[in-house]
Amino acid sequence: MTSPLRLGIAGLGTVGVGTVRIVQRHADLLAERAGRPVTISAVGARSRDKDRGVRLGDYAWEDDPVALARRDDVDVFVELIGGEEGPAKAAAEAAIEAGKHVVTANKALLAMHGQALAEAAEAKGVSIRYEAAVAGGIPVIKSLLEGLAGNEITRVMGVMNGTCNYILTRMQSEGLGYQAVFRECEELGYLEADPTLDVGGIDAGHKLAILTAIAFGTKVDFGALTIEGIEKITFEDIEQAADMGYRIKLLGVAQQSGRGLEARMTPCLVPASSPLGQLEGPTNMVVLEGDSVGQIVLRGAGAGEGPTASAVMGDVCDLARGAMLPVFGKPADKLASPAVSTTDTPAAYYLRMALLDKPGALARIASVIGEAGISIDRMRQYGHSTETAPVLIVTHKAGRDALEAAIGAMPGTGVLASEPVALRIEDV
Amino acid sequence: MTSPLRLGIAGLGTVGVGTVRIVQRHADLLAERAGRPVTISAVGARSRDKDRGVRLGDYAWEDDPVALARRDDVDVFVELIGGEEGPAKAAAEAAIEAGKHVVTANKALLAMHGQALAEAAEAKGVSIRYEAAVAGGIPVIKSLLEGLAGNEITRVMGVMNGTCNYILTRMQSEGLGYQAVFRECEELGYLEADPTLDVGGIDAGHKLAILTAIAFGTKVDFGALTIEGIEKITFEDIEQAADMGYRIKLLGVAQQSGRGLEARMTPCLVPASSPLGQLEGPTNMVVLEGDSVGQIVLRGAGAGEGPTASAVMGDVCDLARGAMLPVFGKPADKLASPAVSTTDTPAAYYLRMALLDKPGALARIASVIGEAGISIDRMRQYGHSTETAPVLIVTHKAGRDALEAAIGAMPGTGVLASEPVALRIEDV
Repeated sequence: MTSPLRLGIAGLGTVGVGTVRIVQRHADLLAERAGRPVTISAVGARSRDKDRGVRLGDYAWEDDPVALARRDDVDVFVELIGGEEGPAKAAAEAAIEAGKHVVTANKALLAMHGQALAEAAEAKGVSIRYEAAVAGGIPVIKSLLEGLAGNEITRVMGVMNGTCNYILTRMQSEGLGYQAVFRECEELGYLEADPTLDVGGIDAGHKLAILTAIAFGTKVDFGALTIEGIEKITFEDIEQAADMGYRIKLLGVAQQSGRGLEARMTPCLVPASSPLGQLEGPTNMVVLEGDSVGQIVLRGAGAGEGPTASAVMGDVCDLARGAMLPVFGKPADKLASPAVSTTDTPAAYYLRMALLDKPGALARIASVIGEAGISIDRMRQYGHSTETAPVLIVTHKAGRDALEAAIGAMPGTGVLASEPVALRIEDV
Repeated sequence: MTSPLRLGIAGLGTVGVGTVRIVQRHADLLAERAGRPVTISAVGARSRDKDRGVRLGDYAWEDDPVALARRDDVDVFVELIGGEEGPAKAAAEAAIEAGKHVVTANKALLAMHGQALAEAAEAKGVSIRYEAAVAGGIPVIKSLLEGLAGNEITRVMGVMNGTCNYILTRMQSEGLGYQAVFRECEELGYLEADPTLDVGGIDAGHKLAILTAIAFGTKVDFGALTIEGIEKITFEDIEQAADMGYRIKLLGVAQQSGRGLEARMTPCLVPASSPLGQLEGPTNMVVLEGDSVGQIVLRGAGAGEGPTASAVMGDVCDLARGAMLPVFGKPADKLASPAVSTTDTPAAYYLRMALLDKPGALARIASVIGEAGISIDRMRQYGHSTETAPVLIVTHKAGRDALEAAIGAMPGTGVLASEPVALRIEDV
């Protein structure tokens, strides 16, 4: 094991450059910890000429990531291109086909094609490692897959999109509306080229799809997730939630219940005093619950050059030491196709809507809720100067079906002035 | 790799029984995750007759842990006896000598004899795993040794004795003195047979000694640690600290500075709003800082049957999959004998003392502090009905040497009515 482990790195954006920097800066440390030198044979990206602030002249250059993946002098293909299709997918497949291990930060690729890639990797006896794909530098995949291997996992939760958490906490701290903070983020370059990936919950959903597969031994299935973004959250929601001792978070929750597998990435209310409620700014947090371990909370930077490259190098060191385990923790053919639950575990819900300012409006809404079998914990109509009245309702625990029935019946009352917003209050 | 991995479990206290329970309850899950069945060949403890509430009849019984460790039908010796000498040490040595891997929850054994055991294990090509020895179910050893392998670790901090954190947070929430809560803990059975292990900081110090070795690539050296317990903390200290926005925690800190390696387990003030400051009750928290990853915070139950057995089984599953890495992350002969720092990184200090109620008393103390080159941030003498006056001083950042010089000169003023208590205010 003293021959070097040779990397081929495709994609030289922030994370790619960060990975090159670690290999250069910590050659001795890596050799000691990995039991053998870690070297770079080749790199590649779309543009060769760009100055990336890092020395690349010692490495072969490949314009084509597929060619890079197939090079004889590459043991581990490090895929940092991104994107669920196109060159990232083609190159990962080519690497596996050529018998190379793959290390990737690509959550979209794994969320959409994880099962097929895992099957291909197993057939070739190679590994796919993806610590960097979920929650940046936090070793959450390792903790779940290895550290908690003796547990039946009961629930996984996480705030895994730093931009969304930044927006929500900044709305609260500055008293700003969603649009105002969104524009700030745009100007600061905090958003993906397609901002829906962030604020629509897609990026965080990709991560949750991966965690769900590992936690519950199921085939990764992004399509089975319920996903809602944070676009409809108003400052008033945040203020009302705070008033009741809650914070609003874009929270991923996956749990196996008698109903089947529940997995959703949606804005939720969580107690302000809980670790999740206290999480501010772009930091990520993942909560793992197991039948023996109880609750473990992991917190750290979810993105950025250093944290994500740290996760890449953790995987590289494992491979250098010869660690091998199935991609999602079990052999791919043993991963279940789960019965996806259509009825979530009951929860209390926060409902916000605007009603026409007519006598009896509130009563009509209350009776629609009651008819759906849901009891109301509190209800508040607050001061207004317009002709519509903002109304806030917190229910007792109710099933999602009942909630949807109630919401579905609301337009029929003729008093609704805006589409109701419903947020789950998660027991954390 | 389909032959079972066969355990021999010595010690059937809480953690031993918990480990047996997981093996029995999750046979299928473990076989899938570990890639092969995990079975128990033999168990042993001091008393065979005791009813432990778990079925043991299928396993061979060994009264002698050394004999258990040497059995031909044992691949992994699980040492859950405890204690730094005696049967735990003898049996771990015997297991290594016989070419078996060792999984242990024994922090004292590793803190005192880790280097010798690591050398013996390497000579025999076997592994010693000890996730359960530090912070119970939190996968902190794995995170540091594997997940953050690409980082130069800059600092490790932790609240790693649940009993101490319980005592300190209960003093605060109930307004009780140290002795009152200590007696409660005694009655509830929360303390070790020798309570100094808990409240004196020894148990937490053992854990810190292990983390320090891994984090900084040094020989484990419990003797190099500065250790102070929580016995001198009063309710007034907690109240004054809270008043200034701090909490008092028994905090382990290890960092490599230009001065050498600093490692101390002492009561410290930390900001109330920090994750460490917010940690209440018996929960543990470990903070890992690396040059790439930034700060990672891990939180969970630090003790108890389930969490500790979970950590044992994580190690067992790693061994079942053939994962091998040096005991402290590097080959034992490459671990450094660190230059231990005698002068800590400067910090602000909280000082509390009682002065004789004489004119000029406060001025004399202030001038002693000034003569040591330390400037005072705030100073408060508060109301008193006795003939001694309680005084609180917060310094600006000062070196430990200067602080000790100041404290050493205080008795010479003739105004001191009690030994001063000095607590470091840690930047977290």
